Amino acid sequence: MIATVTINPAIDVRYNLSTLQMDKVNRVSSIDKTAGGKGLNVSRVLTQLGAEVTCTGFLGGKSGEWIAEQLPELKLMNRFVSIKGDTRSCLAILSNEGHTEILEHGPKILENEKDSFLEMYDSILETANYVVVSGSLPDGIESDFYQTLAEKAGQKGRYLLLDSSGTALSLGIQGKPFLIKPNKEEFCKLIGKNHLSMDDVMRYAQAICRDGVEYVLLSLGKEGAILASKNRVLQAVIPAVKEINQVGSGDSMLAGFTYAHSQGLAIDEVLKWACSCGMSNAASEKTGYINLSQVHHYVELVKVIEINMGG
Amino acid sequence: MIATVTINPAIDVRYNLSTLQMDKVNRVSSIDKTAGGKGLNVSRVLTQLGAEVTCTGFLGGKSGEWIAEQLPELKLMNRFVSIKGDTRSCLAILSNEGHTEILEHGPKILENEKDSFLEMYDSILETANYVVVSGSLPDGIESDFYQTLAEKAGQKGRYLLLDSSGTALSLGIQGKPFLIKPNKEEFCKLIGKNHLSMDDVMRYAQAICRDGVEYVLLSLGKEGAILASKNRVLQAVIPAVKEINQVGSGDSMLAGFTYAHSQGLAIDEVLKWACSCGMSNAASEKTGYINLSQVHHYVELVKVIEINMGG
Repeated sequence: MIATVTINPAIDVRYNLSTLQMDKVNRVSSIDKTAGGKGLNVSRVLTQLGAEVTCTGFLGGKSGEWIAEQLPELKLMNRFVSIKGDTRSCLAILSNEGHTEILEHGPKILENEKDSFLEMYDSILETANYVVVSGSLPDGIESDFYQTLAEKAGQKGRYLLLDSSGTALSLGIQGKPFLIKPNKEEFCKLIGKNHLSMDDVMRYAQAICRDGVEYVLLSLGKEGAILASKNRVLQAVIPAVKEINQVGSGDSMLAGFTYAHSQGLAIDEVLKWACSCGMSNAASEKTGYINLSQVHHYVELVKVIEINMGG
Repeated sequence: MIATVTINPAIDVRYNLSTLQMDKVNRVSSIDKTAGGKGLNVSRVLTQLGAEVTCTGFLGGKSGEWIAEQLPELKLMNRFVSIKGDTRSCLAILSNEGHTEILEHGPKILENEKDSFLEMYDSILETANYVVVSGSLPDGIESDFYQTLAEKAGQKGRYLLLDSSGTALSLGIQGKPFLIKPNKEEFCKLIGKNHLSMDDVMRYAQAICRDGVEYVLLSLGKEGAILASKNRVLQAVIPAVKEINQVGSGDSMLAGFTYAHSQGLAIDEVLKWACSCGMSNAASEKTGYINLSQVHHYVELVKVIEINMGG
C-alpha cells in the first residue's frame, strides 16, 4: 500500500474566459474543479497505475468537504484529518491573455490538529510501505515537519519520497528520506547557487546522497531527468512529445517512480517509468492524468545512460 | 414580515493582492467571503434596520451549504429551495491594478426545482406583506418569471418590489409590481434609448406607472433619486458623502424604501430613508452594510422636492 501526504491541499479551480480585463467585470464561460495539491495529483496517477492509495493531510470547511467527497470516486482511501480552517482554492484563469494563477494561502493548522495528524501518520506507517510527501507547509506547521515525517518513516523501514522546496526541503533532507525530487530551479536554490552546470548538479546530488538520502531524482522537463545515488548517476533521455499541459508532470513522475519501485523493477526501469508518466501527463490536457498505454509506449522510448563520474 | 427572493445567489469572494499580473502566478494576501447576490444584500440591510426577514431562492452544492450556514448568524430565516447544481461564486480582485471582477454564471435550475420554489413562494405570500425580488435569472428559468411572481403577489395584495434589468425587468413590469428600482443605465435600456434627459426620465417613469406599476424608484448615485408615481414625481437631493464602496448601494436603497414603507411613513419620508441607506452603504467598506445612526443623520439632510410635471 502507498500513502500520500498533502499537507496543504486545494480545490484547483479553472476558469475559462475569452478575455480577462483588469479593473473590469469579466464573465466565466466555463469552470472546472478538481481535488488538487501536489500530493493529490500524485495519488490520482498512482491509482491510474493500479496502486492502492491512502491519502492524508488536512481538510477543513466546505472546500475540504468537497475534496473529501471526490476521493471515493477517485478510488482514494481518505485518512485526512479534519481541521477548523478552510481548505484553500487555487485559481487558474485561462484566457487570451495567457494562464493567470491566483493562489490562496491556505488555513492555519492548530496544535491539536497537528497532533491528530501525527497519530494518523503513525498508524498509516503500520501498513504503508511507501509514503509520498508533497508540497508546501501551511501556517502553524514548523519548517522541520518533513524531517519528522522522514525520520518516523525511516524508523519503521518505510520508503519516504519527498517533493518540496525551500526550507521544508532543506530541513526535510536532514530526516534522510529515501528520495527527493527537486526540479533544477529548486535544486539550485537548495544548493544556494544561481546556476549549476549539469556536472555540478550531478556532483551536488551525489553529495546529498552521501548524507543519507538514497536517491535524488532531478526532473529536467524536456531534457529528461537525472537520478543520483551514492554510487551511481543515471541520466534519462526522453523523446520529444507535444506538450499540452506541463502542470502536474513532476507529480506524475514521482508517482511513476514510486509505483515502479514498489513493483521491484530494476532502478533504470524505474527511472524510465518515472519519465514516461511525466511525459504522459504533459501530453494530456488534465493535471495529474496519464494514459496507461501511452506510458507503456514511452517506457520503450526513454533511454537511460550511466554517467561515469570519474574519481 | 418581509421576504426577499434571490434567484441566483453567490458567495462574494474578495481577494486582496498587492498586484495582479496576467499570465503569472499571483498570491492572495487576504480573503473575505460573504453570502451575496443582490437579494441577500437587501436582506442584510433590512435586518440591520430591524425588520424580520425571510429569504428564498435557490441554493445548491457546498457553496449553497456555506451560504445556508451564514443565514442564522445574519438573523435571516432560511426558506431557500435546495438544488442539484452548485451555487456560484463571484470574485472581486482588489489590487493596484484596480477592481477586477470575475463572475461565475451559476447553476441551471431544473423544472422540479422551479416547481418547488413556486410552492415555497406561495406559502411565503401567506405571511409576508412585502416581497423584494432582486437580480438576474439563472439558466432554466424563463424570462417572464418575475412577471409570474409579481402577479401572484398582486393577487394576494402583497407589495412586490422588483430590482432587475433587461428582459427580466421589462417582462416583470407586465406583472404590475408595486415598485421597480432601475438605475439610469438600466432605465435607458428599458425604454430603448441611449440617452434620456431628466425630464424624459420623469415622463417615461410616469408612463410606466400609468401601466400599473405603483412606483418607479430611479437611483442616480451622487445625484440622489427620482420617485415617480402616476400622479406625482419626487426628487431627492442628497448631501455629498465620501464614497468608499458603492457596490450594494442600490440594494441598500431598496431595503431602506421597503422598511420605511412597511413602517407606514409618508412617501417623501420613505424616499429619504431609501437614499440614506444607499448613502450609508456607500460610506462603508462592506457591501450591504449600513450604520443606523448615520442613516438617521442622513435622513435629516436629504431634501425631497416635488416636481411640477405641468399638463
